[in-house]
Amino acid sequence: MKLYDLELSGNCYKVRLFAALARIPLDVVPVDFLGGEHKRPPLSDLNPWGEIPVLVDGDVVLRDSHAILVYLASRHGGAAWLPGDPAGLAEVVQWLSTAANEVQNGPCAARLVDKFGYGLDKAETIRRSLRILPLIDAHLAASAWLAAGRPTIADCAVFPYVALAPEGGVSLEPYGNIRSWIARVKALPNFLPMPGV
Amino acid sequence: MKLYDLELSGNCYKVRLFAALARIPLDVVPVDFLGGEHKRPPLSDLNPWGEIPVLVDGDVVLRDSHAILVYLASRHGGAAWLPGDPAGLAEVVQWLSTAANEVQNGPCAARLVDKFGYGLDKAETIRRSLRILPLIDAHLAASAWLAAGRPTIADCAVFPYVALAPEGGVSLEPYGNIRSWIARVKALPNFLPMPGV
Repeated sequence: MKLYDLELSGNCYKVRLFAALARIPLDVVPVDFLGGEHKRPPLSDLNPWGEIPVLVDGDVVLRDSHAILVYLASRHGGAAWLPGDPAGLAEVVQWLSTAANEVQNGPCAARLVDKFGYGLDKAETIRRSLRILPLIDAHLAASAWLAAGRPTIADCAVFPYVALAPEGGVSLEPYGNIRSWIARVKALPNFLPMPGV
Repeated sequence: MKLYDLELSGNCYKVRLFAALARIPLDVVPVDFLGGEHKRPPLSDLNPWGEIPVLVDGDVVLRDSHAILVYLASRHGGAAWLPGDPAGLAEVVQWLSTAANEVQNGPCAARLVDKFGYGLDKAETIRRSLRILPLIDAHLAASAWLAAGRPTIADCAVFPYVALAPEGGVSLEPYGNIRSWIARVKALPNFLPMPGV
């Protein structure tokens, strides 16, 4: 099972982190991101969107970090990391949507500007960060984990770009519940770090 | 099962559309969106994010349209609309991420500016629309439906704001495969329209 990967990408890290926690072996293939390898064949044939991560498992090719988390949890992790009942499954999917939109366009986008020079509207990325982080913090006031009362792929999806928020100039100082949750994630057996986390 | 709803919201329409197609009875509760009812108790107690749709089914409360689609398909629709195998499930989730990010921040956001006067960066919404629509169009060149070779909740998640793109000044004229797919969705048994679709 091949993961086309960039070490500094939080989206790739979501997959590496979950695979480490769930002890799923991955063949990690580094991509020359700065050289644009992901935008040329053969990688752009695997993912016409020109993005990474990409997971290849035999005939299965997946282009989205959240879909990859669902696939790995469903195929290799059992129900431990992705509840199978409708309410539990939907509770996790709520946080995958949050990771795909609010976190991606908030703290992740702020970091893309500061760390990689992306030409995004920095003020807008901060505005979005300051909307979503208090909501996550308030949620974590009442529960140790994002969904289902236990660590799930919801935590793996949201953790990277929230933990990396300071790299985009977004302080986590005001968010005590988030900081406690980050410490809990880091204390999970087989936790895998990345640069900046 | 109550759906807190706004007729003109494409996110609410995702749920109404799927419920109609899958013949799932919903008690639709109109929300006074312009009056801010969704930002005050009791609705903001159900969803602290201050957004709709919100689904309430006994003890289950869900705040995200894609999570609601997963819940309804999983609980009431069987595997017909949401494959249960890891690859099929992940294939659908790819499109839920696309709906949550690229479609939401592209054609949906463009429509929010033009139709409801939201103070977003219109040029950015157009730029994002012109990136995602060709990718969707290319995908539909090779397959009649977005995922799993049949209509699924992936189509219900992506359809509303793509079909409503012209309301944000984004023409679908260049995208013949998208236009054919829209016609196929509209021809599904029990299809439900909304204003502008």
